[in-house]
Amino acid sequence: MSKPLTGQGPQSKNLKPYRKEADYSYALGAFPTFELLTAKPEAAVRVIVHSSFTDSDKLAQLCEAHRVPFELNDRLLARISGKENCYAAGVFSKYYSSLRADRPHIVLVCPSNMGNLGTIVRTAVGLGICDLAVILPGADIFNPKTVRASMGALFSLCFEFFSSFSEYAKRFPRHKIFTLMTNGATALNEVKDTAIKRCYSLVFGNEAAGLDDSFGAVGDSVYIPQTAAVDSLNLPVAVGIAIYVFQTLCTGE
Amino acid sequence: MSKPLTGQGPQSKNLKPYRKEADYSYALGAFPTFELLTAKPEAAVRVIVHSSFTDSDKLAQLCEAHRVPFELNDRLLARISGKENCYAAGVFSKYYSSLRADRPHIVLVCPSNMGNLGTIVRTAVGLGICDLAVILPGADIFNPKTVRASMGALFSLCFEFFSSFSEYAKRFPRHKIFTLMTNGATALNEVKDTAIKRCYSLVFGNEAAGLDDSFGAVGDSVYIPQTAAVDSLNLPVAVGIAIYVFQTLCTGE
Repeated sequence: MSKPLTGQGPQSKNLKPYRKEADYSYALGAFPTFELLTAKPEAAVRVIVHSSFTDSDKLAQLCEAHRVPFELNDRLLARISGKENCYAAGVFSKYYSSLRADRPHIVLVCPSNMGNLGTIVRTAVGLGICDLAVILPGADIFNPKTVRASMGALFSLCFEFFSSFSEYAKRFPRHKIFTLMTNGATALNEVKDTAIKRCYSLVFGNEAAGLDDSFGAVGDSVYIPQTAAVDSLNLPVAVGIAIYVFQTLCTGE
Repeated sequence: MSKPLTGQGPQSKNLKPYRKEADYSYALGAFPTFELLTAKPEAAVRVIVHSSFTDSDKLAQLCEAHRVPFELNDRLLARISGKENCYAAGVFSKYYSSLRADRPHIVLVCPSNMGNLGTIVRTAVGLGICDLAVILPGADIFNPKTVRASMGALFSLCFEFFSSFSEYAKRFPRHKIFTLMTNGATALNEVKDTAIKRCYSLVFGNEAAGLDDSFGAVGDSVYIPQTAAVDSLNLPVAVGIAIYVFQTLCTGE
């Protein structure tokens, strides 16, 4: 084992339930832990599995390959996960990454729900967009609930935080901006492939309020056609539909 | 008030937290309660609002128009919702509806999560599909968590339960069936509008397992192209993308 356990911090024997202020967090569940070890092994600090977990050999091998301490510890697992039926956890150091200037981006303006944020990460990475900007304030991307909802896709994502949308837009002046608004100018199914540059930004507001009208003047506004029977679509669903359409237009049907 | 309160049942002063066995349930929150009163007033039994709810006039007017008892009762609201910050609730009788043979259907095979089921209802109704078949066992569609996740769109939906997929398929022999499977034969972006009849069924498996291989022989199997970085998409997101594409193909871009 390359990283000996010490008295405090993520190597400590006395790991605590997650705190936002801590410099480490947890991937709870076997699948997110696999993703941590495969996509972001350099952030992995240790892996803890339950004595009744039947698939631990594969995790143990991955840990050995990446020199990450591996241990069976039912009580520690219950304490950090807060539940009895968690079979594996990966402890990881929080890390910073940078958005790539030559890739499409998702921009979330003040997302408020950790489950939605994680689901959006899973959706974006699954559909091939691996760069996410979060305009603050926003839900904690490192919270185990976010990591869990992402099914570990967070570890395949580049993400960055911005204090305002204009700060983001200044950093990436060559990205063509599309804002998703229920009162947008163009229906999603009428967006032309010729209108999309390879580097585009899809911008979404938060769950409760969407984007305020000031965003109508920022880039091209787009709406997803919907019936009057609902007020709006669920945010991760709207993000999924928009990404699918843009990615399909970009790669050509 | 047309329906006087009595000693028991949904008119009782002693309403209890939701039970699956009961013949009534709750729309918790102002928005789902509005939807109940506008889309399904015949099922509404009574409406309870919090004394600090600022938008109660509109609900009171709707109640009067539909002769539904309306009351301020903070303690009762806290008891049935199980939380302090619920400002309105609609009590409704559970009801049965029938799928329409001349409309497209969503078919969910054994959905296990109430939040996902409600989000799928919201998504389907928002994108114009208002007929849902649930193959049992499945999550409780009347549970307040489902109703809440649907944002009240449940009250605009026709839904029916079936004990098996073949029972469903026998009832609707003219529907063209498309199964969504990660190992499907045709990519979603390669489905042609000419392949879709006006009456189609989009069939989805449950969150954990998807559709088993036996569904490969049932209708046309379709997959949503995705990267290797995720195991699958979140179920409501996958449903949303598939419905969007099929509805767009049907109505013509």
